[in-house]
Amino acid sequence: MLIVQKYGGTSVANIERIKAVAERVARTKKEGNDVVVVVSAMAGETDKLIGLASQVSSNPDEREMDLLLSSGERVSSALTALAIGELGLKAMSFTGRQVGIITDAAHTKARIERITADRVKRAIAEGIIPVIAGFQGITETADVTTLGRGGSDLSAVAIAAALKADLCEIYTDVDGVYTTDPNIVPDARKLDKISYEEMLEFASLGAKVLQTRSVEFAKKFEVSVVVRSSFNYNPGTLVVKEDEDMEKVVVSGVAYDKNQTKLTVMGVPDKPGIAARLFNAIANANVVVDMIVQNVSSDGKSTDISFTVPKTNSKKAMKITEEVADELGAKGVDLREDIAKVSIIGVGMRTHSGVAAKMFENLARHGINIIMISTSEIKVSCVIDAKYTELAVRVLHDAFELAEM
Amino acid sequence: MLIVQKYGGTSVANIERIKAVAERVARTKKEGNDVVVVVSAMAGETDKLIGLASQVSSNPDEREMDLLLSSGERVSSALTALAIGELGLKAMSFTGRQVGIITDAAHTKARIERITADRVKRAIAEGIIPVIAGFQGITETADVTTLGRGGSDLSAVAIAAALKADLCEIYTDVDGVYTTDPNIVPDARKLDKISYEEMLEFASLGAKVLQTRSVEFAKKFEVSVVVRSSFNYNPGTLVVKEDEDMEKVVVSGVAYDKNQTKLTVMGVPDKPGIAARLFNAIANANVVVDMIVQNVSSDGKSTDISFTVPKTNSKKAMKITEEVADELGAKGVDLREDIAKVSIIGVGMRTHSGVAAKMFENLARHGINIIMISTSEIKVSCVIDAKYTELAVRVLHDAFELAEM
Repeated sequence: MLIVQKYGGTSVANIERIKAVAERVARTKKEGNDVVVVVSAMAGETDKLIGLASQVSSNPDEREMDLLLSSGERVSSALTALAIGELGLKAMSFTGRQVGIITDAAHTKARIERITADRVKRAIAEGIIPVIAGFQGITETADVTTLGRGGSDLSAVAIAAALKADLCEIYTDVDGVYTTDPNIVPDARKLDKISYEEMLEFASLGAKVLQTRSVEFAKKFEVSVVVRSSFNYNPGTLVVKEDEDMEKVVVSGVAYDKNQTKLTVMGVPDKPGIAARLFNAIANANVVVDMIVQNVSSDGKSTDISFTVPKTNSKKAMKITEEVADELGAKGVDLREDIAKVSIIGVGMRTHSGVAAKMFENLARHGINIIMISTSEIKVSCVIDAKYTELAVRVLHDAFELAEM
Repeated sequence: MLIVQKYGGTSVANIERIKAVAERVARTKKEGNDVVVVVSAMAGETDKLIGLASQVSSNPDEREMDLLLSSGERVSSALTALAIGELGLKAMSFTGRQVGIITDAAHTKARIERITADRVKRAIAEGIIPVIAGFQGITETADVTTLGRGGSDLSAVAIAAALKADLCEIYTDVDGVYTTDPNIVPDARKLDKISYEEMLEFASLGAKVLQTRSVEFAKKFEVSVVVRSSFNYNPGTLVVKEDEDMEKVVVSGVAYDKNQTKLTVMGVPDKPGIAARLFNAIANANVVVDMIVQNVSSDGKSTDISFTVPKTNSKKAMKITEEVADELGAKGVDLREDIAKVSIIGVGMRTHSGVAAKMFENLARHGINIIMISTSEIKVSCVIDAKYTELAVRVLHDAFELAEM
């Protein structure tokens, strides 16, 4: 088999961890596989570099940030290659450029356009283990780019797709994907298998285990992904194409996200083009809007528009929204920061009815008021008061019988 | 004027220092100059990375070391570019590759083959201040290389030559080149001007102020170099082509080097090819031999060969020398580590006689025994017992009247 193994920041956090990674790579190689390694920066390094940049610049240029941040993965790839070499195997580091990960020029969140990987293929053919610096690419004009937070996951999946690897293993500090956060629900159960679609919802709803774009990429190219821990040899969670088995389970897990802020534009005169005007302005400022709810108010002449944005963008979004609200003749803008989003996810929802109702009913029974609702084919999300987050997660995990058997 | 400013590790050691560098660059720019900045890694970073590598590998692969070490300058170049940008000027970081510093593939001590610098030239023309990561280059096959210890000096001088800059300023933590180490001789005097040849001797005789290869390069391309401090606005020392003025001064300075070890092969049967056999073997192990002295012994049938090597290489050199000595039928090998080399330097020696004699006489008067002597056109070096180093430096500084007037 050709296996791509991606090791996250905690997996290469220090020399001991890097040596453990080398041992695991060596073991996989000795079992008769070809191995390609992708590494993140050592845990804490990226934040340290961001901290340095924020000390010299109030609004750091993104091209410079990319050069700065890409250095962390270069360090860990060289150290990991050295550690594997020390075990008597042939290993060689590769930068984003040396792999040929060509991206667009959207610095700090570049998109991969193509991967040549000729040199990596040649290395594999020669029995060498390539150790690739994750998170980074290069533009056509040789500028260094990075792929956004968690971008090493994307590097790994994209490389696995380019190499037509049999498996892409994502090593992290948890055993896999759980029905919910075990810190909140102690008997949360590890899932053996999950569909790309469910994983996408988990990722975008706040579960940190896999970066959203990497799951999209895996789905598109049907890369089999395993999420597992580099701290033990437990089997992990397999992320694959949906199969019949999966549909039998109505709800696979409960996710939550405390990093959202809710904005409401009140009393907007109800005429066409209002939402477009508002959300275009917000999109132009590179703020990602998550949930949107619009209700015509009782008098039928004006409307309230509520939406959520990441907490880090709340000030920026507030400023833009106030400007647009003014222009549209709205009554005012309300900002609410003490909210959380709780979601249930499962491909089984497609074929089972009453799932959303069951969710609302269980929240209501525990006195949890629902502020906003948003649904998709395979998930239901509710915005609630942040203080009820843990309670809501436990109630739903219980209601849908997700606990360890 | 087009000025290349190189800032060493202590000059970019932390955020405050980086901001001070940005201020100085801005000042130079505002005085009407075009500025190109070259930076080293933040002080301590390179050693930290070497430490990490030595923990994962007993004998780290040099290609991996180069990728590892080159990351330090990438970080400081991005941070410095951000700091300059924060002052309202346009700045842009450049990696070795983006500058087009093409080197051979001798990892960890690569030699520059050519510099394209097209993108840097374009940036200057657009009023942008390029901030270049020093110490690094790239091979024709896109592998990252480094230029050896102090290699950022070489980067700066080579870039100054490629851009036909008017001046190359090397910023460090000392005010310039002194007649000798002010820690040993408090009234050592800062030199206003020094010739390339003298600077070369100073550099190779142990003064840390400029890397030897960078001086060779400056001499070859007649790049005017200024060594000065980034901690004040004192004028520094100008390193230029020898002029008539310089010849009037017999001795410009006294240098010393405690990092040498002396090896002696005793009783080698005197026949042709012996020295070649020995020093070829040592050169093949990449050990640089400094001084060599050979004397036919009293019986005229055998010879003693003494030479010095850097202390870090003494074990390696000893092993090789013992093997060769055995082969040649020598009586034995003697290693002496407690030695130092003290040298006087000056282009005036060419036209003044009796300089060496004056040196020997003064050392003798203070009971300092001379173990080895080596001379060149513009310097005389004596190997002495290490414990007399400071005394010898003071005696010679005095004898040649080098003190502050």
